Amino acid sequence: MLNNKEISPAVVNRLPRYHRYLGDLLRDNITKISSKGLSEIMSVTASQIRQDLNCFGEFGHQGYGYNVRRLHEELGKILGVERKFTAVIAGAGNLGTTIAKSGLFVKRGVVLRALFDINPEVIGLQIAGLDVLDVQNMADFCRVNNIDIAVLTLPKEATEHTAHILAAAGVKGLWNFSNMELKIDGVIAENMHMGDSLMTLCYNLNST
Amino acid sequence: MLNNKEISPAVVNRLPRYHRYLGDLLRDNITKISSKGLSEIMSVTASQIRQDLNCFGEFGHQGYGYNVRRLHEELGKILGVERKFTAVIAGAGNLGTTIAKSGLFVKRGVVLRALFDINPEVIGLQIAGLDVLDVQNMADFCRVNNIDIAVLTLPKEATEHTAHILAAAGVKGLWNFSNMELKIDGVIAENMHMGDSLMTLCYNLNST
Repeated sequence: MLNNKEISPAVVNRLPRYHRYLGDLLRDNITKISSKGLSEIMSVTASQIRQDLNCFGEFGHQGYGYNVRRLHEELGKILGVERKFTAVIAGAGNLGTTIAKSGLFVKRGVVLRALFDINPEVIGLQIAGLDVLDVQNMADFCRVNNIDIAVLTLPKEATEHTAHILAAAGVKGLWNFSNMELKIDGVIAENMHMGDSLMTLCYNLNST
Repeated sequence: MLNNKEISPAVVNRLPRYHRYLGDLLRDNITKISSKGLSEIMSVTASQIRQDLNCFGEFGHQGYGYNVRRLHEELGKILGVERKFTAVIAGAGNLGTTIAKSGLFVKRGVVLRALFDINPEVIGLQIAGLDVLDVQNMADFCRVNNIDIAVLTLPKEATEHTAHILAAAGVKGLWNFSNMELKIDGVIAENMHMGDSLMTLCYNLNST
């Protein structure tokens, strides 16, 4: 594995997008692409792309372009795709259900193991082929199965408490949809603020 | 209104986050804050904050700090909160329902008017106090009601076609959850890639 420490945070933020575009190219059976070509589909300057991708070694060849598959694989390694992280979803409501049914996990090498809920009407159901289990058993399940990631799609007022239970059960990453910032020692929280994206749209509409 | 043209894209990307934090402070009845205080809760350097907020005029006073209400209002103006943009949701499935029920719109001054779906079992229902209408009538509804924004939470294969219909009906902004890039002349598309956020989490887990 490459030494991730050498990669600047700004480049890190662009990695998922490079990985996604390269995956799209692979699905379209495109095996090589120039930085100019990538620049056009990604709306990033070609020199930015060359600079970013140089951080990961020699993927480009002057006059040839990038080997799409190799670059996609290498970025995947850096992004932990090969680690096969395991995940559970805490909260099997509309959002939890949407996320379970989406292809988000499989595509990124994350293995979704179960959903958890407090509602007796939902416990026992199957969503996207996975069991919805009683949230009372979530900590034990995570401990026994070495779960890496929990997706927090439960009501805001229950989020912080649940996050601490998960952390104590050994979960190392929280994908947090509660619209509140979570900071828990020893746990990496990725706080998903969908509203920020709506605001960016409004800003752009307001500026035209 | 300030001239948005003068504000760099990097600053623009941070605006929704500033606006959100300032809103949280207001709800906690905090009326002033130093750049150092804001820096601590936002995990951004104080000098970055001073630099960013200087773009919008003189909100800070040496030794006093920022007037939270005034700064929140001014950022709100820049972000179009006062414009009262109108919106519809195309696709009343799990994700559309979650978004309709969330406080995302109200909090940001966006007025949600209706949801649309193709499924006869859903058409006629109410979600979050709003009608679910037949998608056949969506273009007319948008034209008559001058709808600014459409949220695209419908199946991927229907997204591009629907986006073009909405654009022809005068919709100027698309909040796109389809995981495909949309580029339509004269329309601003904000493509929401939730998976990128999952990948960032995986990267951070992989680096520790």
